[in-house]
Amino acid sequence: MAEKAAFYHAGCSVCVDAEPRFVGALDKNLYDVEVVHLGESKGRIDEAERAGVKSVPALVIAGAVYHINHGADLSALR
Amino acid sequence: MAEKAAFYHAGCSVCVDAEPRFVGALDKNLYDVEVVHLGESKGRIDEAERAGVKSVPALVIAGAVYHINHGADLSALR
Repeated sequence: MAEKAAFYHAGCSVCVDAEPRFVGALDKNLYDVEVVHLGESKGRIDEAERAGVKSVPALVIAGAVYHINHGADLSALR
Repeated sequence: MAEKAAFYHAGCSVCVDAEPRFVGALDKNLYDVEVVHLGESKGRIDEAERAGVKSVPALVIAGAVYHINHGADLSALR
């Protein structure tokens, strides 16, 4: 069964560019990637912060956070 | 046929952590990822720079550069 992963973004240009290419490149047999727009789902900013996300876009796989380029700091989304 | 992609790193701890998880998560049917250790292959630093790589680890897919977290600036590897 595919492992859960989350791609957090905020609709910024860096995020929008990264999302389809990045999420599309992942092996769907290995990872079930949920795309979370933190600008629209502000209630999930805390969840992202607990996972270790400092800025978006970021990908969380198996508890590890990968910040991809830099769109916006998480603190700027609150 | 799988498209070429390159994962540039320099053996740093951030790189070593990111490499297997990140490269392993990519869909091998879509991307043929070459892992390039710029500390051992200094002759390829120019190639990475031309592709737009500023720091490692970084993934280059279809001409787009994704800097993943931050291990070391490219300039520190010369």
